[in-house]
Amino acid sequence: MTFERPNIASMQGYTSGEQPDGGEVIKLNTNENPYPPSPAVSAAIAGFAVETLRRYPQPTADVFRDAAATLHGINRDEVIATRGGDELLRLVITTYVDPGQRIGMTDPTYSLYPVLADIQGCPIFKQPLESDWGLAEDFARQLNDNDCRLAFVVNPHAPSGQLVSTQRLRAIADEFKGVLLIDEAYVDFIDGGYDSISLIREFDNVILLRTLSKGYSLAGLRFGYGMAAPSLITPMLAKTRDSYNLDALGQVIATAAIQDQDYAKQTWASVREQRVLLQSSLIELGLSVPDSQANFLLAGVNAENSVTAQDIYRLLKEQGLLVRYFAIDRLADKLRISVGSETENARLINLLEDILG
Amino acid sequence: MTFERPNIASMQGYTSGEQPDGGEVIKLNTNENPYPPSPAVSAAIAGFAVETLRRYPQPTADVFRDAAATLHGINRDEVIATRGGDELLRLVITTYVDPGQRIGMTDPTYSLYPVLADIQGCPIFKQPLESDWGLAEDFARQLNDNDCRLAFVVNPHAPSGQLVSTQRLRAIADEFKGVLLIDEAYVDFIDGGYDSISLIREFDNVILLRTLSKGYSLAGLRFGYGMAAPSLITPMLAKTRDSYNLDALGQVIATAAIQDQDYAKQTWASVREQRVLLQSSLIELGLSVPDSQANFLLAGVNAENSVTAQDIYRLLKEQGLLVRYFAIDRLADKLRISVGSETENARLINLLEDILG
Repeated sequence: MTFERPNIASMQGYTSGEQPDGGEVIKLNTNENPYPPSPAVSAAIAGFAVETLRRYPQPTADVFRDAAATLHGINRDEVIATRGGDELLRLVITTYVDPGQRIGMTDPTYSLYPVLADIQGCPIFKQPLESDWGLAEDFARQLNDNDCRLAFVVNPHAPSGQLVSTQRLRAIADEFKGVLLIDEAYVDFIDGGYDSISLIREFDNVILLRTLSKGYSLAGLRFGYGMAAPSLITPMLAKTRDSYNLDALGQVIATAAIQDQDYAKQTWASVREQRVLLQSSLIELGLSVPDSQANFLLAGVNAENSVTAQDIYRLLKEQGLLVRYFAIDRLADKLRISVGSETENARLINLLEDILG
Repeated sequence: MTFERPNIASMQGYTSGEQPDGGEVIKLNTNENPYPPSPAVSAAIAGFAVETLRRYPQPTADVFRDAAATLHGINRDEVIATRGGDELLRLVITTYVDPGQRIGMTDPTYSLYPVLADIQGCPIFKQPLESDWGLAEDFARQLNDNDCRLAFVVNPHAPSGQLVSTQRLRAIADEFKGVLLIDEAYVDFIDGGYDSISLIREFDNVILLRTLSKGYSLAGLRFGYGMAAPSLITPMLAKTRDSYNLDALGQVIATAAIQDQDYAKQTWASVREQRVLLQSSLIELGLSVPDSQANFLLAGVNAENSVTAQDIYRLLKEQGLLVRYFAIDRLADKLRISVGSETENARLINLLEDILG
């Protein structure tokens, strides 16, 4: 017999991007930063007093929260630290959406959102994106008409890399009657001119999600944070969060990483530079590659090509290079390619020349 | 306005034991191991390749799962690795109990259980323990009669330290129609003769919870695991678990720790030795202290004493020594005292001599 709840028994779990064990593979499939973490991270680990691990960690990661608050010019009570952005996504649902209530999102979007909705037993409203991957003009009204209690907007958008302006977000937050979570996992790679922090002071229904996975080269650490009005932060911090959600060593590492802004900004600039070069090379090879504000590109394979996107994915994998292929509507003829280091990108282009040439 | 779900708005969060910032305080309040982590932990940290943190961790902590499976003579698919025992408790509820369905537990018990039930919107059935803190004879029948889908039994019991035999657990698992979670957070401090692992092969409704927080001196790391039949493990592993719940460095540290059984067993033996000595000293001071199979003692303050348990808690705290006081039924005249190092325990006894003398 199964003891599973009916909604769990009928759902599918999240499928992670492939994580090969061996070190030989070039991974341009999960949007990791091609550069290593800050030297301050190594120093923090080397200087960590291991004997303190016998004690429970500070429960709410206050030293990190203070560092994040300082960085963004806000207060500690406007910040919650979480195990990656994923934990924040789960906490927002657990705290703000009853089973049976609807969660809104765009289509396509980050594929974890519907999984988390399924776990809570929440139906989903999906608003198709426009042909240029932009938000529908009446997105907020649609959310309200469909009685959504929570909406997820990933900005820059995954997997297209398109950016919604803060002005547009402001209008959505103003009109939408539920909680608006803006998932800014890729915010550090935007070309400039985007500053959403003021939204959390203007609106009591906006939560910004940040992660150290991409911008700080710490996907392996599992550390992120949310920013919002204290009325949204406090229930997650004091009630629904696992009582000690962040380990002591991770708190020290994350604090060191976000305090080394100079280093982080260098990696962001390098990724942006490589993004432009990679985009040009892919376009020269005949692929359709719109501008992206994230650390990945969405490359379309034209129908007249001799190989499909799925073929290319498979042929690259055979050569030890991973990109991301989604076998779903509107994405089945495209590949999401993380911006790698100069060497990694060159290897990709070489392989693609053989495949497409 | 509040966006909180009604059950979240009306609930109280979990209250952690006090975690003072300063290093001067003697902490006998949160059942931490008085001895430092294994030297293998320091070696694992020193040998960790920091640059690998830029990549996502292995999603299911398989190297650790293999190490735990080897230790207990079971298979990898019978093990799930979690962020402390707390994450496993949450996952069991999320996966196996619908909102509105009842969760059974003893009274008193670990104070986190009712909080987790509240978050899921689950009513609670509480079965009072006998006067000697033993389980009621008809516990399983009561669980069934109250239609409990899940029951939590902490064994050895917190905060009393009493042990339920595996024979008794076997009878409960056999009779109870729901999922039985046996929380073995303190199992490493049992005097011997307890082996529950076979229960997960005999029953498809038994989950054993283990943690590295106490037995491996790693409360600061947040690492635990569950053992059960694959039919219970798989849905948590593949569906309800946060997609990357354990960081890469933590996986390496935890694996090193449980592979150094010689060191861990030394600390367990020392704690047991100190437990006997501390119990004798407390009894000599006029306190009522039953035998305990955990790394803490529950010390009762007799009514004829000049000071109450709460007074003692407060006076000890003023002197920089923390113990745990619970202002609830049946515990308000008692103190839960973690077994500390020889020096810490001696300091406690000295202070108590002054307070009670």
